Amino acid sequence: MADVTREMSSEQRLQSYYREMLPFALRPLWLDYKELLPPQPKSKAIPYRWSWRDIRPQMMRAGELVSTEEAERRVLMLMNPGLNGLQAITSTLYAGIQLVLPGEIARAHRHSPAALRFIIEATGGYTTVDGERIPMLPGDLVLTPNWTWHDHGNEADTPIIWLDGLDIPLARALESMFFELFGDDAQPLTKPSDSSFFQYGAGGLRPAWQKHSASYSPLLHYPWPQTRATLERLAATTAGGPHDGVILEYTNPVTGGPVMPTMACFAQVLRPGQRTKAHRHTSSAAYHVVEGSGFSMVDGERLEWDAKDVFAVPAWAVHHHENNSSQDAYLFSFTDVPVLAALDLLREAPAA
Amino acid sequence: MADVTREMSSEQRLQSYYREMLPFALRPLWLDYKELLPPQPKSKAIPYRWSWRDIRPQMMRAGELVSTEEAERRVLMLMNPGLNGLQAITSTLYAGIQLVLPGEIARAHRHSPAALRFIIEATGGYTTVDGERIPMLPGDLVLTPNWTWHDHGNEADTPIIWLDGLDIPLARALESMFFELFGDDAQPLTKPSDSSFFQYGAGGLRPAWQKHSASYSPLLHYPWPQTRATLERLAATTAGGPHDGVILEYTNPVTGGPVMPTMACFAQVLRPGQRTKAHRHTSSAAYHVVEGSGFSMVDGERLEWDAKDVFAVPAWAVHHHENNSSQDAYLFSFTDVPVLAALDLLREAPAA
Amino acid sequence: MADVTREMSSEQRLQSYYREMLPFALRPLWLDYKELLPPQPKSKAIPYRWSWRDIRPQMMRAGELVSTEEAERRVLMLMNPGLNGLQAITSTLYAGIQLVLPGEIARAHRHSPAALRFIIEATGGYTTVDGERIPMLPGDLVLTPNWTWHDHGNEADTPIIWLDGLDIPLARALESMFFELFGDDAQPLTKPSDSSFFQYGAGGLRPAWQKHSASYSPLLHYPWPQTRATLERLAATTAGGPHDGVILEYTNPVTGGPVMPTMACFAQVLRPGQRTKAHRHTSSAAYHVVEGSGFSMVDGERLEWDAKDVFAVPAWAVHHHENNSSQDAYLFSFTDVPVLAALDLLREAPAA
Amino acid sequence: MADVTREMSSEQRLQSYYREMLPFALRPLWLDYKELLPPQPKSKAIPYRWSWRDIRPQMMRAGELVSTEEAERRVLMLMNPGLNGLQAITSTLYAGIQLVLPGEIARAHRHSPAALRFIIEATGGYTTVDGERIPMLPGDLVLTPNWTWHDHGNEADTPIIWLDGLDIPLARALESMFFELFGDDAQPLTKPSDSSFFQYGAGGLRPAWQKHSASYSPLLHYPWPQTRATLERLAATTAGGPHDGVILEYTNPVTGGPVMPTMACFAQVLRPGQRTKAHRHTSSAAYHVVEGSGFSMVDGERLEWDAKDVFAVPAWAVHHHENNSSQDAYLFSFTDVPVLAALDLLREAPAA
Repeated sequence: MADVTREMSSEQRLQSYYREMLPFALRPLWLDYKELLPPQPKSKAIPYRWSWRDIRPQMMRAGELVSTEEAERRVLMLMNPGLNGLQAITSTLYAGIQLVLPGEIARAHRHSPAALRFIIEATGGYTTVDGERIPMLPGDLVLTPNWTWHDHGNEADTPIIWLDGLDIPLARALESMFFELFGDDAQPLTKPSDSSFFQYGAGGLRPAWQKHSASYSPLLHYPWPQTRATLERLAATTAGGPHDGVILEYTNPVTGGPVMPTMACFAQVLRPGQRTKAHRHTSSAAYHVVEGSGFSMVDGERLEWDAKDVFAVPAWAVHHHENNSSQDAYLFSFTDVPVLAALDLLREAPAA
Repeated sequence: MADVTREMSSEQRLQSYYREMLPFALRPLWLDYKELLPPQPKSKAIPYRWSWRDIRPQMMRAGELVSTEEAERRVLMLMNPGLNGLQAITSTLYAGIQLVLPGEIARAHRHSPAALRFIIEATGGYTTVDGERIPMLPGDLVLTPNWTWHDHGNEADTPIIWLDGLDIPLARALESMFFELFGDDAQPLTKPSDSSFFQYGAGGLRPAWQKHSASYSPLLHYPWPQTRATLERLAATTAGGPHDGVILEYTNPVTGGPVMPTMACFAQVLRPGQRTKAHRHTSSAAYHVVEGSGFSMVDGERLEWDAKDVFAVPAWAVHHHENNSSQDAYLFSFTDVPVLAALDLLREAPAA
Repeated sequence: MADVTREMSSEQRLQSYYREMLPFALRPLWLDYKELLPPQPKSKAIPYRWSWRDIRPQMMRAGELVSTEEAERRVLMLMNPGLNGLQAITSTLYAGIQLVLPGEIARAHRHSPAALRFIIEATGGYTTVDGERIPMLPGDLVLTPNWTWHDHGNEADTPIIWLDGLDIPLARALESMFFELFGDDAQPLTKPSDSSFFQYGAGGLRPAWQKHSASYSPLLHYPWPQTRATLERLAATTAGGPHDGVILEYTNPVTGGPVMPTMACFAQVLRPGQRTKAHRHTSSAAYHVVEGSGFSMVDGERLEWDAKDVFAVPAWAVHHHENNSSQDAYLFSFTDVPVLAALDLLREAPAA
Repeated sequence: MADVTREMSSEQRLQSYYREMLPFALRPLWLDYKELLPPQPKSKAIPYRWSWRDIRPQMMRAGELVSTEEAERRVLMLMNPGLNGLQAITSTLYAGIQLVLPGEIARAHRHSPAALRFIIEATGGYTTVDGERIPMLPGDLVLTPNWTWHDHGNEADTPIIWLDGLDIPLARALESMFFELFGDDAQPLTKPSDSSFFQYGAGGLRPAWQKHSASYSPLLHYPWPQTRATLERLAATTAGGPHDGVILEYTNPVTGGPVMPTMACFAQVLRPGQRTKAHRHTSSAAYHVVEGSGFSMVDGERLEWDAKDVFAVPAWAVHHHENNSSQDAYLFSFTDVPVLAALDLLREAPAA
């Protein structure tokens, strides 16, 4: 055998060596080096747009075929086609469209992934969070942070549809997923309705007798009219920043920081004819078109968008937005910026 | 002489010893021990109320006798009678009443003491802060933080009168007083009018393209209507805290903390018949009655107050407030809480 | 066709519905609900121990077969057998064993994943980080944080072998991987040798003229003798905590926090006969045995360990450690605690 | 009377006006404007040096004339001659020299002013802080933070003398002075001797099982040999900063910040012939010469200093240090930097 070895080529010796270390759960780094440490990121997720024209009929059909009781949550997940069946809109973010029909409730539970709801269609409907009932109207942002009890209901006579945003892919990658049912369908109401908004919703004012030390915002409800009016007013006097124009971050009023430690939320307006400068960043984003139409160029892909569409901008994808219509366009988006910032992995660069 | 010494009494020897160390700038601690380290604080400031009935005529008389040009600032200082001529309303806070007549301006300057203005009477008038003109209407709070350029003017045809609050006694105790004239009477306007409010005045929303790293709030204008409405709405569903009822802190929206590092500002409402529980704290406060009437018990002193009055609550004074009228009472106050909190010297205790 | 549909069973209709939405990149949440939101985490990584008896011969063989020049880094990766070929020791952490032979250098580069080195065998050898040469001796911890230039060399006449710890799986999951070669093999030396230790290595003392605002520790070298002596001294008077006994966290002296924003490092001592109480946490860890022997029970698996072995404790695995020998055992470990803490996903619980 | 008034001169009318508002506790700002808002600070404290040749004999004489029991604390206060009898070395800092004779104890108490001790002469002696006995040897820094129980004793056969540093003038200005006697002369020992040093005294290492959330350092003892050795080692390879050369800040190892929220401590070395660049800052400082001799120019005043002397540098005084001897000089100092920094009143400028 020694002879054989001697006669083995250098490459054969290496292959034999690699095989022999397998049982010891060892592997040479140099075989994977380039793949493991590429010069810059290339997201597995792809730029993609979900058209409301496609989503809505499928969503309504679910309303006929499946009850909320059967489904627990009647949601169609937005599956990024690049991610091989991973339940994710970008590599770290999950998005879904949820439908609650008149009279239905979605029973109370809690989970370690943080969630947000952005309301698309509604005339009534509510989410209860830790004992507080929050009304849901189109354009509103409602938070159900990590480990808060929440249930939903629709007391109106029209369907309520919203966009769900969660950090599920991140929580899975970090193997920190916990889930618990409340027991009863609905949790008891222990606080005045919409009280987080009454307490924390006024700009630059905070109820001084309250102590809030949670990692997430005590303000759980951001009504659309105020957000839209602020954008409109700002757009009248400023062009905003180069890459996102006039854009507001929804904030935790107790810290001034992001609404939750894993996701940041934004609303922006694009004036008719406005075209932002292209850039990229290691954070990824899911966008929802609140009003208007236009398109975004994302890594060379042209994503045309119209009202209520959803689209994905993967990490490190060069992108810019353009409003080629004659009316203001309003975009809502949520991202993983706080994650990357906390870990010092957030980078941003203008397009070359 | 040795003999003499031997014959000296013990007390004489001590007195002689004390005298001999004087030229070396030494002094025995034991002579001052009890005075230097008392069991608890006793403020030199006293509980005191300034009546608007007294202040206003004196203020208007100043308008006849002295021009803003002559006075630089036409201000009557509220002198706490316990402080021996120190220009202070409590041991760490300064308060004054300022009058600007129609057509007058108060020329641009800046200083290291931080300042706030709470508007008492106005139909027009403005403060310009670092290039931004801020309108001033009754009940508004306007900030001119440490080292920001500011000038004032009155373009209306009625006088404008406001309450000035500054941390001058603190800045003097810390020997950190700087002052500079701008040169011209008015600074150039470099930002849209009231833009701090348009950018940072909406609850839970922040212009995402702006970076603000100063130690003070980027929001410089807190209009009264929003503050009052928030108080009213909260008072309808909650009793607030035990010692101050329904009370809002004005905040820096970028940090959630106090508006400036040396002073915190508050607005509160007392319902008819409401009486708060007595407590005390090492912070001191100056109160201004925005609306209504009532009284406060402060270290046994009954301070009756009516609309537009000002009153002082010294450090560690036991106090409670009572609205003995049939209408809501609204109080504005400013305190040195952030100073004591930063230095770990803030204590609070319910009354014995 | 309507007839056919009517004749379809409910299940058939659902399957047909699911198929039809596929092209729209939609998928019903209710199909994946339970798998996506399990009651608690179950790591894909398994408890595992790599024996130094296995690693070292394989490592030395690499020294014969591959030059550092060919390999760029001559490293054997510790592949957790549960992770299907992912280059990772736990789901978020990477570990490898690196060999640099006498006279070799590993050329300068930098990358966004943060790295640490814990020295196993050495008589000489160095890592240069951002212009500062750091000596490497057995037991030393050396940091090469996110995006710092680093190269290695061995000027002694014996091999140097160390444990590499990186956050590669995390940086990949977050799609934030950047890599750059320096150009030259070695970077120029711009600072005195070991100067981070001379400046920041003394307890409770900081060079006051230096400003350090990076997210990672300015102290890059933690020599073993001081760590070991501190553990020994503490173990003489305290039992430490219930789950980890006498355990030190390596800290960033400028913040008191973890050495880098994505990884925390620890050293602990287990006295002869000591058995820690079992617990679990959402953070995962890689352990290296500096001295001594014993075993750890991890999710029911008994991992026997001896000097220089490496073992993995996956997220949420119940574990305790036991020193069943007659000599002190010293363990080094690194974890993803800072990641989970920053995102409010860190949970810890005693074993049921 | 109207006639009389009409006949009054303008100046008379003003004087009359000023008198009439006195009973209302009002005073015109314009009378005090320039004095209240000077262009820059001018400290009331003066540059001053206390010579050990003067202090020590006076201190020893106190040992003959007054027992610790009689004096409670046998301390000679260093009275800044500019401060009119205020017990202060600068406007915000207090310093005293304390003597405890063999066999004496100074009984347990606590107070809201924070205290530090820098040991000048000792062969034995201790301070007990919150149940932990801390040995005191020459050059050691020992902390007794805000509201910690502390007592002192001397078990050696030689006197122990130290420098006391407190923030008494600040606590008085802020009217936040609390004091309490323990009851018994000595508090019970509940922790191992010097355990804060054993737990937190090693550079870059922290006992991971301990939670410390107080505003002050958990490390209470900074032995001189380590401080001196670090200075010596640094001075061999760096010139340090322009204004203070090689200077270390004593830190809170849990935050990296100052040892206490109101006072920062520093140790520095001046090489033979070294002359620092002149600058000034709004913080004030008390210096103690640990070893060596030299002089400091402070606002034009030449303060010659020798071993064990103490000298004061007032706020905003231009100063530099010079070692005109042939041996290293070591200076300890404490300042109010954290106060000014927290309140955004810290300014520093090179000399014009």
